[in-house]
Amino acid sequence: MKKSELFSHIQSTRSYLCVGLDTDIQKIPAHLKKEKDPVFEFNKQIIDATLEYCIAYKPNIAFYEALGGAGWESLQKTVEYIPKNKFKIADAKRGDIGNTSSLYAKAFFENMSFDAITVAPYMGKDSVTPFLEYKNKWTIVLAHTSNQGSKDFQVVKNTSGNFLYEDVMLKSMEWGDDSNMMFVVGATRSDKMREIRKLAPDHFFLVPGVGAQGGSLEEVSKYGLTKSCGLIVNSSRGIIYASNNKNFAKDAAISAKLVQQEMDKYLDLFLANE
Amino acid sequence: MKKSELFSHIQSTRSYLCVGLDTDIQKIPAHLKKEKDPVFEFNKQIIDATLEYCIAYKPNIAFYEALGGAGWESLQKTVEYIPKNKFKIADAKRGDIGNTSSLYAKAFFENMSFDAITVAPYMGKDSVTPFLEYKNKWTIVLAHTSNQGSKDFQVVKNTSGNFLYEDVMLKSMEWGDDSNMMFVVGATRSDKMREIRKLAPDHFFLVPGVGAQGGSLEEVSKYGLTKSCGLIVNSSRGIIYASNNKNFAKDAAISAKLVQQEMDKYLDLFLANE
Repeated sequence: MKKSELFSHIQSTRSYLCVGLDTDIQKIPAHLKKEKDPVFEFNKQIIDATLEYCIAYKPNIAFYEALGGAGWESLQKTVEYIPKNKFKIADAKRGDIGNTSSLYAKAFFENMSFDAITVAPYMGKDSVTPFLEYKNKWTIVLAHTSNQGSKDFQVVKNTSGNFLYEDVMLKSMEWGDDSNMMFVVGATRSDKMREIRKLAPDHFFLVPGVGAQGGSLEEVSKYGLTKSCGLIVNSSRGIIYASNNKNFAKDAAISAKLVQQEMDKYLDLFLANE
Repeated sequence: MKKSELFSHIQSTRSYLCVGLDTDIQKIPAHLKKEKDPVFEFNKQIIDATLEYCIAYKPNIAFYEALGGAGWESLQKTVEYIPKNKFKIADAKRGDIGNTSSLYAKAFFENMSFDAITVAPYMGKDSVTPFLEYKNKWTIVLAHTSNQGSKDFQVVKNTSGNFLYEDVMLKSMEWGDDSNMMFVVGATRSDKMREIRKLAPDHFFLVPGVGAQGGSLEEVSKYGLTKSCGLIVNSSRGIIYASNNKNFAKDAAISAKLVQQEMDKYLDLFLANE
């Protein structure tokens, strides 16, 4: 998907919400467990119910890998089921030497029709660039994550005065640009969002951690939105586990709609400022 | 597997060789391609042939994931086929927020019987510790890798005067110890190996990059061996693709034996120094 298409979907949906498909077989409603493929059945109903409120879906690959070959099949069916106009993110956090990253790119971009994959930058340039070789696909580089452990290395300053995450962003921007690269930017502090936006004014950010992890959607939007939106904000548990009974999909839709309505407002308020 | 058992296998095999199962469907001999599961058939014959010369096997997960569900099955069959006294490493370079890393740990340690997994440290403590919760399993943290891109971030100095890889090792050693944690240490320069060994005198290092990537086994052994060996040296392509005809397994055995004989010598020369 091209950047202009993504922005066009955002404008028509009035939303920059990504629904995280962290589908845990332990947490899905009991009545689905008798289905042949309960994980896919759950995802299918969640997708049907939330479609009009979001622009992206993000399966967290670990949840599928933990189920072995069967999980891999549920994942493949899920990706095929997501409509073409939705942005499909493989939350995989992959990254290895060049020939190996190429194979991960093949797995997610060729064998499955993901539009984007999250990539860990620790191994540097040749671990990231194989993902960038695919036209109209996106590499989402971990920059500043939202978890506790982000403090351990990402916000340590180097001798040039940059935090590691800043160095990661600056170097990554030499390898790709805002047409094929995004960054993961945790949303727990709005002043951070303002700083990081200055560093990459035109890139899309994938923002986890709004809701359950305590980030404020208003603050993130205020400091993160650009003239072409520039934000994809993820919510997983808050939407897909809104309830745990026969009405789970309806309840997921209600939760997604609430977020979408808030986003609609911020698109008016903050996008116009540009 | 406990550290003492691993060392005991090293002593009886007179080897610290790991055979990397980077099994590429494009590269396996033509006569195997008519088999029902060519990847597993190839691995099976490689394992049978190299068993007496190595102490570990390391499937590179990307090669299996690139084949989808079928690849996942080949991987599972391969891990089951490897004898119990061999150390089984999932070269997966995983790492995510806590609940997600837990699921990766489940996938590789519970659903499959891997003894160890390689882990990327960028997301910090809570991305690494879920792997450490498994008894007699090993977390192999990326420290100083052997690829070109290792220069981009790993050898950048922070304001405390540590390289990033040093910081990763020092912090990781607060989360685990030499009974459940190893480090990936690239072998391309022997002076580096000496420095890094000082930092972690008791930990096992998984060393890629000997052979194809130009590291010298002698130098690595001289500066890396400890009183309980402390080294697992991997070779992938040099062994499994020693030839590409009906004799591929025999040729792999010859290549593995050459490395083992060299290691036998270094175990005498350098282990005694301790």
